[in-house]
Amino acid sequence: MKTVIVYYHPYNKSYCRAILEAAKQGAMDAGREADVIDLSADSFNPVMGKEDLQGFVRHEIIDPKAKEYFDRIKGACHLIFIFPIWWGNMPAMVKGFIDKVVFPGSFYEQDNSGKVIPLLPNLKVTIFATMNTPAPIYKLYFGNQVYNAMKKSVFGFAGIKDVKFVPFGTVKAVSASKREKWLKKAARIAGER
Amino acid sequence: MKTVIVYYHPYNKSYCRAILEAAKQGAMDAGREADVIDLSADSFNPVMGKEDLQGFVRHEIIDPKAKEYFDRIKGACHLIFIFPIWWGNMPAMVKGFIDKVVFPGSFYEQDNSGKVIPLLPNLKVTIFATMNTPAPIYKLYFGNQVYNAMKKSVFGFAGIKDVKFVPFGTVKAVSASKREKWLKKAARIAGER
Repeated sequence: MKTVIVYYHPYNKSYCRAILEAAKQGAMDAGREADVIDLSADSFNPVMGKEDLQGFVRHEIIDPKAKEYFDRIKGACHLIFIFPIWWGNMPAMVKGFIDKVVFPGSFYEQDNSGKVIPLLPNLKVTIFATMNTPAPIYKLYFGNQVYNAMKKSVFGFAGIKDVKFVPFGTVKAVSASKREKWLKKAARIAGER
Repeated sequence: MKTVIVYYHPYNKSYCRAILEAAKQGAMDAGREADVIDLSADSFNPVMGKEDLQGFVRHEIIDPKAKEYFDRIKGACHLIFIFPIWWGNMPAMVKGFIDKVVFPGSFYEQDNSGKVIPLLPNLKVTIFATMNTPAPIYKLYFGNQVYNAMKKSVFGFAGIKDVKFVPFGTVKAVSASKREKWLKKAARIAGER
């Protein structure tokens, strides 16, 4: 059993990096292989070009890295995202991963009437995301954008039911002991079935 | 007076392209200069790298194209975005424009207590966005993600009050006459003061 972790943060001493290490360890402690997709290290290009759009219409991933990422994901039981929330939302790099990897023919198919046929219905998806906003304000005032995006627009659309959003709010302001506790939480959730 | 239009669509015969032409014309008919930032044509790189993040901390835009874009925007009275909504959200290219251009020191400053000081409070912002979801379902079920992002998280944070979100829903399914009507609407809104 394999856990794929999609990771993005431009600064390699960020709290996201600590979450990555904790999640990796949590997955391995649960007896799984942990396969990390580090989008910055890979110099992934998040832009949908004309060819990618044509590929989407034909149900075929075009970007070779996106294709490789999907091949790594399709055998996994758990897909984990780790990234910072900027401007209420996922960074461009992560949005581009969604745009170029979640394709018809990869995560789902559609029949002639437009009905979605899930291709990875049993994949579990978890999103760990850091921000400087308090999590309740993010949810109530800013409209829980990443939750709505990942749970409803992306993976919900593709027929994946088990999507968990785990926000870590006001990361710059919280105590060291809280940060340690959160890493244990990330490790535990990464190890869940 | 100048209107800056930030445009992204990988396919140059898209309905977004028609909206671009209508908005340009609407701005010019209102006696303004229309300055178009075509992110694909510019091969803009939407990724925040390590240097960009360091620049954010120092209140200094690093990417030369992002710097040039801000220089073009700061003298404008109206900033218009035109893009397709994918997966409930703006494409990576547009999110990267936000990530790299909306910086402290450009759109806003923050004092030592963290209080935001708007630097472009009188800029008017309009977002024209196409999607295949019906606009009411986008708003009520999918959580109006682009509205929350642009109105609250991005430009609201930067102290800009006049932010208008104009969604065009189910664009593939609507009649030619509706599409024509929408282009007139886009032209009219682009010409508003």
